Amino acid sequence: MTPEQSVVATVVHAWKQNLERADRIFSTLSERDLQREVGPGKNRLVYLWGHLIAVHDAMLPLLGLGERLHPELDDAFLKNPDRVVADSLSAADLKRLWNEVNQRLLEAFGAFTAAEWTEKHTVVSAEDFAVNPLRNRLSILLSRTSHVSYHLGQATLAPR
Amino acid sequence: MTPEQSVVATVVHAWKQNLERADRIFSTLSERDLQREVGPGKNRLVYLWGHLIAVHDAMLPLLGLGERLHPELDDAFLKNPDRVVADSLSAADLKRLWNEVNQRLLEAFGAFTAAEWTEKHTVVSAEDFAVNPLRNRLSILLSRTSHVSYHLGQATLAPR
Repeated sequence: MTPEQSVVATVVHAWKQNLERADRIFSTLSERDLQREVGPGKNRLVYLWGHLIAVHDAMLPLLGLGERLHPELDDAFLKNPDRVVADSLSAADLKRLWNEVNQRLLEAFGAFTAAEWTEKHTVVSAEDFAVNPLRNRLSILLSRTSHVSYHLGQATLAPR
Repeated sequence: MTPEQSVVATVVHAWKQNLERADRIFSTLSERDLQREVGPGKNRLVYLWGHLIAVHDAMLPLLGLGERLHPELDDAFLKNPDRVVADSLSAADLKRLWNEVNQRLLEAFGAFTAAEWTEKHTVVSAEDFAVNPLRNRLSILLSRTSHVSYHLGQATLAPR
Protein backbone atom coordinates (compact mmCIF):
# COMPACT_ATOMS: atom_id res chain seq x y z
CA MET A 1 0.00 0.00 0.00
CA THR A 2 1.22 3.49 -0.82
CA PRO A 3 0.87 6.12 1.94
CA GLU A 4 -1.97 7.59 -0.10
CA GLN A 5 -3.86 4.30 -0.18
CA SER A 6 -3.11 3.63 3.45
CA VAL A 7 -4.46 7.02 4.55
CA VAL A 8 -7.69 6.45 2.66
CA ALA A 9 -8.08 2.89 3.97
CA THR A 10 -7.54 4.16 7.53
CA VAL A 11 -10.23 6.82 7.20
CA VAL A 12 -12.76 4.37 5.74
CA HIS A 13 -11.88 1.91 8.52
CA ALA A 14 -12.62 4.56 11.16
CA TRP A 15 -16.03 5.15 9.56
CA LYS A 16 -16.73 1.41 9.62
CA GLN A 17 -15.70 1.12 13.26
CA ASN A 18 -18.14 3.81 14.25
CA LEU A 19 -20.92 2.15 12.26
CA GLU A 20 -20.18 -1.16 13.97
CA ARG A 21 -20.36 0.55 17.33
CA ALA A 22 -23.70 2.08 16.39
CA ASP A 23 -24.87 -1.29 15.15
CA ARG A 24 -24.03 -2.96 18.45
CA ILE A 25 -26.02 -0.32 20.32
CA PHE A 26 -29.08 0.16 18.11
CA SER A 27 -29.61 -3.17 16.35
CA THR A 28 -30.04 -5.05 19.61
CA LEU A 29 -32.70 -2.74 21.05
CA SER A 30 -36.29 -3.88 21.53
CA GLU A 31 -39.22 -1.68 20.55
CA ARG A 32 -39.50 -0.77 24.18
CA ASP A 33 -35.79 0.05 24.51
CA LEU A 34 -36.03 2.32 21.48
CA GLN A 35 -38.48 4.48 23.40
CA ARG A 36 -35.91 5.29 26.09
CA GLU A 37 -34.71 8.91 26.20
CA VAL A 38 -31.04 9.91 26.37
CA GLY A 39 -32.00 12.25 29.22
CA PRO A 40 -35.18 13.59 30.83
CA GLY A 41 -37.23 15.13 28.01
CA LYS A 42 -34.43 14.60 25.47
CA ASN A 43 -34.39 12.60 22.22
CA ARG A 44 -35.48 8.97 22.24
CA LEU A 45 -33.12 6.30 20.93
CA VAL A 46 -35.53 5.59 18.07
CA TYR A 47 -35.12 9.20 16.96
CA LEU A 48 -31.32 9.07 17.08
CA TRP A 49 -31.27 5.90 15.01
CA GLY A 50 -33.67 7.22 12.39
CA HIS A 51 -31.72 10.48 12.33
CA LEU A 52 -28.46 8.66 11.61
CA ILE A 53 -30.12 6.68 8.81
CA ALA A 54 -31.52 9.85 7.22
CA VAL A 55 -28.19 11.68 7.48
CA HIS A 56 -26.32 8.74 5.96
CA ASP A 57 -28.88 8.42 3.19
CA ALA A 58 -28.33 12.09 2.36
CA MET A 59 -24.62 11.35 1.87
CA LEU A 60 -25.43 9.54 -1.39
CA PRO A 61 -26.22 12.65 -3.49
CA LEU A 62 -23.74 14.72 -1.49
CA LEU A 63 -20.92 12.41 -2.54
CA GLY A 64 -22.19 12.08 -6.11
CA LEU A 65 -23.34 8.48 -5.59
CA GLY A 66 -26.88 8.91 -6.91
CA GLU A 67 -30.30 9.71 -5.56
CA ARG A 68 -31.49 9.32 -1.99
CA LEU A 69 -32.87 5.87 -1.21
CA HIS A 70 -35.15 7.06 1.61
CA PRO A 71 -35.98 10.77 1.51
CA GLU A 72 -39.26 9.86 3.23
CA LEU A 73 -37.29 9.64 6.51
CA ASP A 74 -36.59 13.36 6.63
CA ASP A 75 -39.91 14.54 8.02
CA ALA A 76 -39.67 12.36 11.10
CA PHE A 77 -35.91 12.36 11.67
CA LEU A 78 -34.25 15.37 10.08
CA LYS A 79 -36.58 18.31 9.51
CA ASN A 80 -38.40 17.96 12.82
CA PRO A 81 -37.38 17.33 16.39
CA ASP A 82 -38.32 14.08 18.08
CA ARG A 83 -42.02 13.34 18.71
CA VAL A 84 -43.40 15.80 16.13
CA VAL A 85 -44.13 13.04 13.60
CA ALA A 86 -45.86 9.89 14.93
CA ASP A 87 -43.73 6.74 14.95
CA SER A 88 -44.35 4.58 11.89
CA LEU A 89 -41.25 2.37 11.70
CA SER A 90 -40.60 -0.77 13.73
CA ALA A 91 -37.19 -1.78 15.05
CA ALA A 92 -37.01 -4.30 12.19
CA ASP A 93 -37.80 -1.57 9.64
CA LEU A 94 -35.07 0.67 11.02
CA LYS A 95 -32.55 -2.15 11.02
CA ARG A 96 -33.31 -2.94 7.38
CA LEU A 97 -32.98 0.72 6.32
CA TRP A 98 -29.81 1.19 8.37
CA ASN A 99 -28.16 -1.79 6.72
CA GLU A 100 -29.35 -0.89 3.24
CA VAL A 101 -28.08 2.68 3.33
CA ASN A 102 -24.74 1.90 4.95
CA GLN A 103 -24.08 -0.99 2.61
CA ARG A 104 -24.66 1.22 -0.41
CA LEU A 105 -22.21 3.77 0.97
CA LEU A 106 -19.57 1.22 1.85
CA GLU A 107 -19.61 -0.30 -1.63
CA ALA A 108 -18.83 3.10 -3.10
CA PHE A 109 -16.21 3.94 -0.48
CA GLY A 110 -14.24 0.81 -1.27
CA ALA A 111 -13.81 2.03 -4.86
CA PHE A 112 -12.80 5.69 -4.25
CA THR A 113 -9.15 6.56 -4.75
CA ALA A 114 -7.44 9.32 -2.74
CA ALA A 115 -7.86 11.59 -5.77
CA GLU A 116 -11.60 10.89 -5.84
CA TRP A 117 -11.94 11.47 -2.11
CA THR A 118 -10.35 14.89 -2.53
CA GLU A 119 -12.75 15.95 -5.29
CA LYS A 120 -15.36 18.52 -4.37
CA HIS A 121 -18.62 17.31 -2.91
CA THR A 122 -21.81 18.22 -4.77
CA VAL A 123 -23.05 21.04 -2.55
CA VAL A 124 -20.00 23.31 -2.74
CA SER A 125 -19.61 25.46 -5.88
CA ALA A 126 -16.53 25.19 -8.08
CA GLU A 127 -15.60 28.75 -7.05
CA ASP A 128 -15.85 28.05 -3.32
CA PHE A 129 -13.99 24.78 -3.75
CA ALA A 130 -11.15 26.62 -5.51
CA VAL A 131 -10.82 28.85 -2.43
CA ASN A 132 -11.18 25.97 0.04
CA PRO A 133 -10.11 22.59 -1.41
CA LEU A 134 -10.80 20.94 1.94
CA ARG A 135 -14.53 21.07 1.16
CA ASN A 136 -14.12 17.70 -0.48
CA ARG A 137 -15.79 14.31 -0.25
CA LEU A 138 -13.44 13.21 2.49
CA SER A 139 -14.47 16.10 4.71
CA ILE A 140 -18.07 14.83 4.43
CA LEU A 141 -17.00 11.34 5.46
CA LEU A 142 -15.04 12.69 8.43
CA SER A 143 -17.81 14.98 9.54
CA ARG A 144 -20.36 12.14 9.35
CA THR A 145 -17.99 9.87 11.29
CA SER A 146 -17.87 12.47 14.06
CA HIS A 147 -21.63 12.81 13.81
CA VAL A 148 -22.21 9.10 14.49
CA SER A 149 -19.87 9.26 17.45
CA TYR A 150 -21.57 12.40 18.81
CA HIS A 151 -24.92 10.63 18.97
CA LEU A 152 -23.43 7.37 20.26
CA GLY A 153 -22.08 9.32 23.21
CA GLN A 154 -25.65 10.43 23.87
CA ALA A 155 -27.19 7.00 23.28
CA THR A 156 -25.03 5.44 26.00
CA LEU A 157 -26.53 7.86 28.52
CA ALA A 158 -30.11 6.58 28.10
CA PRO A 159 -31.13 5.20 31.51
CA ARG A 160 -32.38 1.62 31.52
CA MET B 1 -1.76 20.05 -3.30
CA THR B 2 -1.37 16.39 -4.26
CA PRO B 3 -4.26 14.06 -3.31
CA GLU B 4 -1.98 12.68 -0.60
CA GLN B 5 -1.39 16.11 0.91
CA SER B 6 -5.03 17.03 0.55
CA VAL B 7 -6.22 13.88 2.32
CA VAL B 8 -3.91 14.54 5.26
CA ALA B 9 -4.85 18.23 5.44
CA THR B 10 -8.54 17.26 5.47
CA VAL B 11 -8.10 14.82 8.36
CA VAL B 12 -6.13 17.33 10.44
CA HIS B 13 -8.77 19.95 9.66
CA ALA B 14 -11.52 17.64 10.98
CA TRP B 15 -9.55 17.21 14.21
CA LYS B 16 -9.20 20.99 14.54
CA GLN B 17 -12.88 21.54 13.92
CA ASN B 18 -13.79 19.17 16.74
CA LEU B 19 -11.33 20.88 19.07
CA GLU B 20 -12.82 24.25 18.21
CA ARG B 21 -16.28 22.92 18.97
CA ALA B 22 -15.03 21.60 22.31
CA ASP B 23 -13.37 24.92 22.98
CA ARG B 24 -16.60 26.82 22.36
CA ILE B 25 -18.41 24.57 24.81
CA PHE B 26 -15.88 24.15 27.63
CA SER B 27 -13.77 27.33 27.61
CA THR B 28 -16.79 29.54 28.22
CA LEU B 29 -18.07 27.62 31.26
CA SER B 30 -17.99 29.14 34.74
CA GLU B 31 -16.84 27.12 37.75
CA ARG B 32 -20.49 26.59 38.55
CA ASP B 33 -21.36 25.46 35.01
CA LEU B 34 -18.51 22.94 35.12
CA GLN B 35 -20.29 21.22 38.00
CA ARG B 36 -23.34 20.45 35.83
CA GLU B 37 -23.92 16.77 35.02
CA VAL B 38 -24.65 15.47 31.53
CA GLY B 39 -27.53 13.51 33.04
CA PRO B 40 -28.83 12.62 36.52
CA GLY B 41 -25.92 11.00 38.37
CA LYS B 42 -23.73 11.05 35.23
CA ASN B 43 -20.35 12.68 34.61
CA ARG B 44 -19.91 16.36 35.33
CA LEU B 45 -18.69 18.70 32.58
CA VAL B 46 -15.49 19.32 34.54
CA TYR B 47 -14.75 15.61 34.37
CA LEU B 48 -15.36 15.40 30.61
CA TRP B 49 -13.05 18.34 30.00
CA GLY B 50 -10.27 16.98 32.20
CA HIS B 51 -10.75 13.57 30.58
CA LEU B 52 -10.30 15.01 27.09
CA ILE B 53 -7.14 16.84 28.19
CA ALA B 54 -5.66 13.66 29.71
CA VAL B 55 -6.50 11.59 26.62
CA HIS B 56 -4.99 14.19 24.31
CA ASP B 57 -1.89 14.46 26.48
CA ALA B 58 -1.46 10.70 26.19
CA MET B 59 -1.39 11.05 22.40
CA LEU B 60 2.09 12.60 22.64
CA PRO B 61 4.00 9.38 23.47
CA LEU B 62 1.51 7.30 21.45
CA LEU B 63 2.39 9.25 18.31
CA GLY B 64 6.10 9.35 19.11
CA LEU B 65 6.06 13.05 19.96
CA GLY B 66 7.77 12.81 23.32
CA GLU B 67 6.82 12.46 26.95
CA ARG B 68 3.47 13.29 28.51
CA LEU B 69 3.18 16.90 29.63
CA HIS B 70 0.59 16.18 32.35
CA PRO B 71 0.47 12.58 33.54
CA GLU B 72 -0.74 13.95 36.88
CA LEU B 73 -4.20 14.32 35.31
CA ASP B 74 -4.74 10.57 35.00
CA ASP B 75 -5.79 9.86 38.56
CA ALA B 76 -8.66 12.29 38.47
CA PHE B 77 -9.71 12.02 34.84
CA LEU B 78 -8.62 8.73 33.31
CA LYS B 79 -8.02 5.97 35.84
CA ASN B 80 -11.01 6.80 38.00
CA PRO B 81 -14.63 7.70 37.34
CA ASP B 82 -15.89 11.15 38.15
CA ARG B 83 -15.97 12.28 41.80
CA VAL B 84 -13.45 9.72 43.12
CA VAL B 85 -10.63 12.29 43.25
CA ALA B 86 -11.46 15.68 44.79
CA ASP B 87 -11.46 18.61 42.37
CA SER B 88 -8.18 20.50 42.42
CA LEU B 89 -8.19 22.40 39.12
CA SER B 90 -10.00 25.66 38.40
CA ALA B 91 -11.66 26.49 35.09
CA ALA B 92 -8.64 28.68 34.32
CA ASP B 93 -6.25 25.79 35.07
CA LEU B 94 -8.15 23.46 32.76
CA LYS B 95 -8.24 26.04 29.99
CA ARG B 96 -4.48 26.52 30.21
CA LEU B 97 -3.79 22.76 30.13
CA TRP B 98 -6.28 22.21 27.30
CA ASN B 99 -4.60 24.87 25.17
CA GLU B 100 -1.09 23.73 26.02
CA VAL B 101 -1.65 20.09 25.14
CA ASN B 102 -3.61 20.73 21.96
CA GLN B 103 -1.14 23.31 20.74
CA ARG B 104 1.73 20.88 21.17
CA LEU B 105 -0.17 18.27 19.15
CA LEU B 106 -1.16 20.64 16.39
CA GLU B 107 2.42 21.82 15.89
CA ALA B 108 3.49 18.25 15.26
CA PHE B 109 0.49 17.44 13.06
CA GLY B 110 1.29 20.29 10.73
CA ALA B 111 4.66 18.69 9.99
CA PHE B 112 3.62 15.05 9.44
CA THR B 113 3.56 13.82 5.83
CA ALA B 114 1.13 11.12 4.66
CA ALA B 115 3.98 8.60 4.95
CA GLU B 116 4.59 9.65 8.56
CA TRP B 117 0.89 9.45 9.41
CA THR B 118 0.80 5.88 8.13
CA GLU B 119 3.74 4.77 10.26
CA LYS B 120 2.95 2.56 13.21
CA HIS B 121 2.04 4.16 16.48
CA THR B 122 4.20 3.36 19.50
CA VAL B 123 1.93 0.88 21.27
CA VAL B 124 1.53 -1.64 18.46
CA SER B 125 4.40 -4.11 17.92
CA ALA B 126 6.21 -4.33 14.57
CA GLU B 127 4.75 -7.84 14.13
CA ASP B 128 1.16 -6.76 14.76
CA PHE B 129 1.64 -3.73 12.55
CA ALA B 130 2.83 -5.96 9.71
CA VAL B 131 -0.44 -7.89 9.99
CA ASN B 132 -2.58 -4.79 10.34
CA PRO B 133 -1.01 -1.67 8.79
CA LEU B 134 -4.08 0.36 9.69
CA ARG B 135 -2.83 0.48 13.29
CA ASN B 136 -0.99 3.62 12.36
CA ARG B 137 -0.70 7.15 13.72
CA LEU B 138 -3.60 8.31 11.61
CA SER B 139 -5.90 5.74 13.19
CA ILE B 140 -5.07 7.30 16.57
CA LEU B 141 -5.91 10.77 15.31
CA LEU B 142 -9.22 9.53 13.85
CA SER B 143 -10.16 7.62 16.96
CA ARG B 144 -9.41 10.63 19.16
CA THR B 145 -11.41 12.88 16.83
CA SER B 146 -14.40 10.55 17.30
CA HIS B 147 -13.69 10.52 21.02
CA VAL B 148 -13.97 14.31 21.31
CA SER B 149 -17.19 14.25 19.35
CA TYR B 150 -18.61 11.43 21.52
CA HIS B 151 -18.19 13.50 24.67
CA LEU B 152 -19.36 16.72 23.02
CA GLY B 153 -22.62 14.96 22.24
CA GLN B 154 -22.91 14.24 25.95
CA ALA B 155 -21.82 17.72 27.05
CA THR B 156 -24.65 19.34 25.09
CA LEU B 157 -27.17 17.32 27.11
CA ALA B 158 -26.18 18.86 30.48
CA PRO B 159 -29.27 20.65 31.75
CA ARG B 160 -28.80 24.33 32.64
